[in-house]
Amino acid sequence: MLAQNTGPLLVIGGAEDKKGEQVILKEFIRLAGGDAARIVIMTVATEHPYEVGEDYTQIFRKLMGDSGEDQVQCVHIESREEAQHEKSLAAIESASGVFFTGGDQFRITSLLGGTRVDALLHARHEDGLVLAGTSAGASMMSTTMIIEGSAHDTARVGMVRLGAGLEFLPGVLIDQHFAQRGRINRLLSAIAEYPHHLGIGIDENTALVVHGHEFEVIGTGSVTVIDAADVTDTNVHLLDQHEHLAICNVKLHILTPGYGFNLRDRIPRKTN
Amino acid sequence: MLAQNTGPLLVIGGAEDKKGEQVILKEFIRLAGGDAARIVIMTVATEHPYEVGEDYTQIFRKLMGDSGEDQVQCVHIESREEAQHEKSLAAIESASGVFFTGGDQFRITSLLGGTRVDALLHARHEDGLVLAGTSAGASMMSTTMIIEGSAHDTARVGMVRLGAGLEFLPGVLIDQHFAQRGRINRLLSAIAEYPHHLGIGIDENTALVVHGHEFEVIGTGSVTVIDAADVTDTNVHLLDQHEHLAICNVKLHILTPGYGFNLRDRIPRKTN
Repeated sequence: MLAQNTGPLLVIGGAEDKKGEQVILKEFIRLAGGDAARIVIMTVATEHPYEVGEDYTQIFRKLMGDSGEDQVQCVHIESREEAQHEKSLAAIESASGVFFTGGDQFRITSLLGGTRVDALLHARHEDGLVLAGTSAGASMMSTTMIIEGSAHDTARVGMVRLGAGLEFLPGVLIDQHFAQRGRINRLLSAIAEYPHHLGIGIDENTALVVHGHEFEVIGTGSVTVIDAADVTDTNVHLLDQHEHLAICNVKLHILTPGYGFNLRDRIPRKTN
Repeated sequence: MLAQNTGPLLVIGGAEDKKGEQVILKEFIRLAGGDAARIVIMTVATEHPYEVGEDYTQIFRKLMGDSGEDQVQCVHIESREEAQHEKSLAAIESASGVFFTGGDQFRITSLLGGTRVDALLHARHEDGLVLAGTSAGASMMSTTMIIEGSAHDTARVGMVRLGAGLEFLPGVLIDQHFAQRGRINRLLSAIAEYPHHLGIGIDENTALVVHGHEFEVIGTGSVTVIDAADVTDTNVHLLDQHEHLAICNVKLHILTPGYGFNLRDRIPRKTN
């Protein structure tokens, strides 16, 4: 169930433009309040939190102009203990937008899952906090996330390792760097096992802007939606690990900017 | 329209097993008459016709046992003139199975298209001749074929160059080395422009065995079928070359051995 005031999500397929038009990062700042935004950068996914955090700090400060100096801060969490600290909580408590960097999505869920930071992010998001995540930060948004898996291969059973996401966007399974890394077969493999989830593959420099049950596409690539609701035959339940998957009657949408999607009704639409 | 006696087609996604089980090449020999088969190897696609022809000659002779010695021959066509020669025609006239090697599909269509060899192959195929093609030899089977195009990229308008195939299997658009080279987006791009065609992507060491309107899958990979008949929105007609494609409500099937497909009704089915 979505709370009435649930904040927007910005789910980014990685490698967003940081030097040119910066359409996606500008949208994040806009959603979070523009010049009045208070931004927290969560670097928990990366093993290089200080470099990555500093890069985004500079970018966001620049985008916010004069007002940015004091309104952008990093929260570096490198242990579960730090995910319980008052200092981390205080930063999130006062933020209008929280941005998760890339890295390893399993770091995010294993370090944050069930902590006070996790609970506070959910509470504040249900009360309007804007949440953004790129790459690993996008993957962890979903209920079930792809932890790792091979690509460029025939769809096989178990070609991805799945785990629990932090569930800011329920009912979906997100993959990123999608076209660039040829990941459609791994997403199909995951969706064959979890056909109640909607598979969403996001290209680089491309993002979903989610408001309630609707998302729109922004950026320069496309978003692939895989809907297994009408699947008839599949052999996924009969196979051993790594055997080749058959699946019939998958519905597929490729959406570019100008298109959106209703996640509840599973229907694409034009937005302009 | 399919003639009553039209021979089977074996459409191979490239890199078929030549040393192990050889499931696909054995099926070709079996379809062509087993020990009584009379095989012609067409090397027109490759720039190395003598090496490639010799390799397949040895393989087929071995598979046919004692009887193979005199029943396997190569037809090397390196010019349109040679595609009018009596010698080429005589070989095809007496064959029970013709095998097209890999190489460049555009060589096949540009050297054979409209020649006496082309006409004879069609006439004999409609009268029961078994036709097989691997890689380039698979691509040319369709009405419209992909000549070349980038892969591993977001689906874009015009990301593939299309041309006329030799049309042994009408109504489809075939791509090969499919999962291995991450070609789903280029096939989607082609099908977006030609939604009346069915897109068929064949993995390596995988083949369609086509009898009439039905095919079955054999080999070790899978076959991806893209059906755009129910597509609602698309922007393909509005875009410039290389702009990103949107397409909604594509139907997708991934079929493995044990599955088949009715090309006329566009319906997948289990075969065992």
